[in-house]
Amino acid sequence: MTPLSTSVGIVTPQRATFTESLALQSGASLPGFELVYETYGSLNAERSNAILICHALNASHHVAGTYEGESESEGWWDNMVGPGKAIDTDRFFVIGVNNLGSCFGSTGPASINLATGRPWGSDFPIVTVEDWVDAQARLADRLGVQRLAAVMGGSLGGMQALAWAIRFPQRIARALVIAAAPNLSAQNIAFNEVARAAIMTDPEFHDGKFYDYGVKPVRGLRVARMIGHITYISDEQMAERFGRQLRDGLNFSFAPEFQIESYLRYQGEKFAEYYDANTYLRITKALDYFDPAAATGGDLARALAPATCGFLVISFTTDWRFSPARSREIVKALVDNRKDVCYAEIDAPHGHDAFLLDTPQYHAIVRAFLDRLAP
Amino acid sequence: MTPLSTSVGIVTPQRATFTESLALQSGASLPGFELVYETYGSLNAERSNAILICHALNASHHVAGTYEGESESEGWWDNMVGPGKAIDTDRFFVIGVNNLGSCFGSTGPASINLATGRPWGSDFPIVTVEDWVDAQARLADRLGVQRLAAVMGGSLGGMQALAWAIRFPQRIARALVIAAAPNLSAQNIAFNEVARAAIMTDPEFHDGKFYDYGVKPVRGLRVARMIGHITYISDEQMAERFGRQLRDGLNFSFAPEFQIESYLRYQGEKFAEYYDANTYLRITKALDYFDPAAATGGDLARALAPATCGFLVISFTTDWRFSPARSREIVKALVDNRKDVCYAEIDAPHGHDAFLLDTPQYHAIVRAFLDRLAP
Repeated sequence: MTPLSTSVGIVTPQRATFTESLALQSGASLPGFELVYETYGSLNAERSNAILICHALNASHHVAGTYEGESESEGWWDNMVGPGKAIDTDRFFVIGVNNLGSCFGSTGPASINLATGRPWGSDFPIVTVEDWVDAQARLADRLGVQRLAAVMGGSLGGMQALAWAIRFPQRIARALVIAAAPNLSAQNIAFNEVARAAIMTDPEFHDGKFYDYGVKPVRGLRVARMIGHITYISDEQMAERFGRQLRDGLNFSFAPEFQIESYLRYQGEKFAEYYDANTYLRITKALDYFDPAAATGGDLARALAPATCGFLVISFTTDWRFSPARSREIVKALVDNRKDVCYAEIDAPHGHDAFLLDTPQYHAIVRAFLDRLAP
Repeated sequence: MTPLSTSVGIVTPQRATFTESLALQSGASLPGFELVYETYGSLNAERSNAILICHALNASHHVAGTYEGESESEGWWDNMVGPGKAIDTDRFFVIGVNNLGSCFGSTGPASINLATGRPWGSDFPIVTVEDWVDAQARLADRLGVQRLAAVMGGSLGGMQALAWAIRFPQRIARALVIAAAPNLSAQNIAFNEVARAAIMTDPEFHDGKFYDYGVKPVRGLRVARMIGHITYISDEQMAERFGRQLRDGLNFSFAPEFQIESYLRYQGEKFAEYYDANTYLRITKALDYFDPAAATGGDLARALAPATCGFLVISFTTDWRFSPARSREIVKALVDNRKDVCYAEIDAPHGHDAFLLDTPQYHAIVRAFLDRLAP
């Protein structure tokens, strides 16, 4: 029996170059692009066991395993993907891909625009969830996968799974839509807009051309990340982890006094070190724009009508970014269409971030869903 | 019969100067100070009909009425205070006061520090809810009011009413604690800290000495206000007022596209024009620090034991800044003490801002509570 904690081991990112241009939802097009990706497990002879994992806001293609020389995995879903894990790499060929516009290797605002020889910066087009899915489909072609056993993701990743089901119904057998929503609420958009305002009004943003100035809008990025972070954790979890605990007594100054202040500042600083401001702006826009029902007059059931895959929709009780009620909208639209859908509302205290954690019931449901059909 | 919509009419702010120094909670002291205030109605011969109104984050002493030359009231609680209104100025002598550290006339960071001849700026001490209450008590002395018929406020104003009940039990007959909480949660503090980070990292903040540079950290203030604003409105209300409405179609740019974006930007810009950054920092700190139960090992009932006044506690169903559950903590602590307390949970869709609106049931309860005892 395979131990549950087994890792996929040492992994190496790969790069796929696409020379044909990609037409974008905005009307612009991207003249060729590169996608960085990783794979775990082996593609079977029938090419029928591939699972595509889509990432959310600040993650990447590095889903599982360790890089040469690392002692611990920094893969963002390493607890989910591996031999004997819920996404069992002894059975499935798993693909992690970095999306267009990101800052972890795929073509994005920090990449060199071949037309100018300089970083794209603010000239990089706004890309949407549908654009990502189109680019991912090209990667599947390249890997020789015509039909995916599953497309899966949490949060913004779940939206990509939903877009796959609508856009390429013949190419996916299952969609796992976790901690997602059929679109952003006004409040969700509001949080994104505040984060963007913090970045865009940072004097070192230079209208998105900060690469040319050798600076980064780190102050804006920090604030943006701090705001985001509040929405990823439930109020209850924050109360339990931090409450009103002080670091070292009240000091009647503006230095951090409460533990929650230190925590948020630390998260903001860490993020601003590695993340690209233009990517942050674009990924929040992709979130704001996602709304498959917009094409069908607001009727989500009609928007989902083309889908033919089986669906697993999962939400978490304390998620206030994309609450269970939002997941239930998706489920209702699928049921109205008499689609094959399973729904689980997981009792978890963590809020939105629960989708990244290894609550046993949650992982067991993912495993069971994939077991329903042979790959 | 007095028409319900009657205003207190033309009002003029007054100024009280206190030369005796004020010892602050921080251990610092303020060498004399000024408070700006307004009064409406007349103090009766027994001096027993005074109601003190305490303001929240961005409000002031200007509670009701109009200034000379204005056609409409900009008083923040004009719907509550006036002849025939819930706080009936035909019966009560109402006092609105601007708190210490504010930027609307009372001594604060933008005031001249007599010791240096320059604005206090970052040298202005951090003041607490208790410090405000101590200063307000001096104003009551000055006005010849030994015992207030009521102290009343919403949000941070409700915290001041609570502090009065504990600090000066013999000096108040009633406390009206509306849309408040016995302390801030970790999430509440987190939102404040992000707002402070936006202000303090604005290069034009100059460590709080921006007056000397002839600039203002308007970018930071805008972001701070945008964040705050999200927490003042319920998710439901934002969905109803703005939803995913676009201004003018998608433009695939970072100009405002959704109505909620325009609204937030407008709110941020308006606020940054008139509000002082050092005041914002200090008022959020006063909120973070407020925690009467900290002095009694976390036991709120023990903290409230000294109170002798009658209490009216009001919360609003969709308030997620200070939810009804937080108001119920106050009610429970009062009931455990066998204090005289009325509690109303008003069904209102607006979120935290509901305390400023004139929901009829809400105002009727305030009126009825004040009617229970003759002034």
